[in-house]
Amino acid sequence: MEKSESTKIDVVETNKERKGKAPLLGTAAPVVAAATTAEHAKGGAKRGIAIFDLILRIAAFASALGAAVAMGTTEETLPFFTQFFQFEASYDDLPTFTFFVVAMAIVVAYLVLSVPFSIVCIVRPYAVVSRLLLIIFDTVIIALATGAAGSAAAIVYLAHNGNQDANWLAICQQFGDFCQRASGAVVAAFITVVILIFMVVLSASALRRH
Amino acid sequence: MEKSESTKIDVVETNKERKGKAPLLGTAAPVVAAATTAEHAKGGAKRGIAIFDLILRIAAFASALGAAVAMGTTEETLPFFTQFFQFEASYDDLPTFTFFVVAMAIVVAYLVLSVPFSIVCIVRPYAVVSRLLLIIFDTVIIALATGAAGSAAAIVYLAHNGNQDANWLAICQQFGDFCQRASGAVVAAFITVVILIFMVVLSASALRRH
Repeated sequence: MEKSESTKIDVVETNKERKGKAPLLGTAAPVVAAATTAEHAKGGAKRGIAIFDLILRIAAFASALGAAVAMGTTEETLPFFTQFFQFEASYDDLPTFTFFVVAMAIVVAYLVLSVPFSIVCIVRPYAVVSRLLLIIFDTVIIALATGAAGSAAAIVYLAHNGNQDANWLAICQQFGDFCQRASGAVVAAFITVVILIFMVVLSASALRRH
Repeated sequence: MEKSESTKIDVVETNKERKGKAPLLGTAAPVVAAATTAEHAKGGAKRGIAIFDLILRIAAFASALGAAVAMGTTEETLPFFTQFFQFEASYDDLPTFTFFVVAMAIVVAYLVLSVPFSIVCIVRPYAVVSRLLLIIFDTVIIALATGAAGSAAAIVYLAHNGNQDANWLAICQQFGDFCQRASGAVVAAFITVVILIFMVVLSASALRRH
């Protein structure tokens, strides 16, 4: 009688333990699974952002290269000339345009060099250092590209409209082709800037989802 | 006899359970404590960065305001005049300088409006959204400020040096004071840009330590 009672108690206790553990395990397994899925989803989102970043980087490279080449090859020789003088305009007549070409060349070189880091971000979605480096240098390059684009835009505006108060005459009446190419290069540079800003915003939001 | 046996078993089992739990609790407590300390240290580092960000924001505000006011109040009237004409130069003679003043005013307004978000980052070191918003808008403002600074720099350079090829004469021989003020405003704008870049880099690294 006493034995059966004690056995009964033991059994009950074991049962309790099982009961106590079973629901824990039962709930723990889905929780872990859900966490792993969320982790995977996050990794996937990060990888998607990284791939998009690489595509934007290539687009920025293309437009920066376009801007540099368009400005660098800008020159125009007018079809008439005097005995002593031939009228021609080239990008290196204006120091601002020279700066523009150099700055956009630096942007192009940076974008090429940054591609490996972007690929690292795709392969390892949680690589924080390369993402952070990209944000920092992208920001510096934004400043360089915008400075070049802004200064060239100021000169192109002046070439188109001139300035009466400072007695600077518009030169685009004579050098129309030259002005058009320079304007195109400036537009391409501003497109590069917009893409670069978008890249920084994307990278920052990818850094957040950690 | 049988009862004592069963009791013994029970006691042993309870002992085991206690033994099993005791070390777990013993090791768990320091681990939790260490995690909390690390958490606190991280929060402290984030708060330190947020405070530094606020200081930089105020510095950027000061230099942007200085740039806008210096350029906005730039005018010079030459001490000689003809019967029909008085020689004077003002910032709004040049559209680029007008753009500069407007852009720097926008930068100043943005920096004032962003202070509450910066304070949120100090009060709540883990507030990710406000930090992310700051990075995104700071980047856009960097582009605006750099564009304004770059274009004004191009015009100031032209005013100082002129350009023989385009037949644009330097006007700084006549309007020396005007040119100096404008140059000072451009330098202040570039200082603002550098501070803004530093702010973005800081915020991005604070976002990383999550």
